[in-house]
Amino acid sequence: PDWHIVERDGIPRLERVFTVKDFATALALANKVGVIAEEEGHHPALLTEWGKLTVTWWTHKIRGLHRNDFIMAAKTDKAYASLK
Amino acid sequence: PDWHIVERDGIPRLERVFTVKDFATALALANKVGVIAEEEGHHPALLTEWGKLTVTWWTHKIRGLHRNDFIMAAKTDKAYASLK
Repeated sequence: PDWHIVERDGIPRLERVFTVKDFATALALANKVGVIAEEEGHHPALLTEWGKLTVTWWTHKIRGLHRNDFIMAAKTDKAYASLK
Repeated sequence: PDWHIVERDGIPRLERVFTVKDFATALALANKVGVIAEEEGHHPALLTEWGKLTVTWWTHKIRGLHRNDFIMAAKTDKAYASLK
């Protein structure tokens, strides 16, 4: 279960921590996810740290999870796979 | 006081939230801070969201704040200023 649902500020969110080799790679993945976000007009929270990127999706308008968030999660996984 | 000290996991950290116009600008600022981080070999946590970037500096080795973190904060401010 790479993605898990976390509730924060009363809003359920879909979150996954991607482990990568260093800070630059985490930021590179953040940029790939940023491209997807702009394409779809749907934006996550991206926490870039040394060796990991935490990606969080949710739908602001409904203060929760929409089918689209799960699609974005799948696209995020593809971006991660393309790093290697 | 743009930067404030927050304690998280028992570690004091220097944090600032930069307000920007959209997600792409937040990510652009994250990339600028990433360049500074690589130059100095010292890496922050960067939380990119729509319209804001939260930058957090601390020194892992000492589990706290070092003079260098304040220097990095000043460099981060310059990167932000250069956005406009």
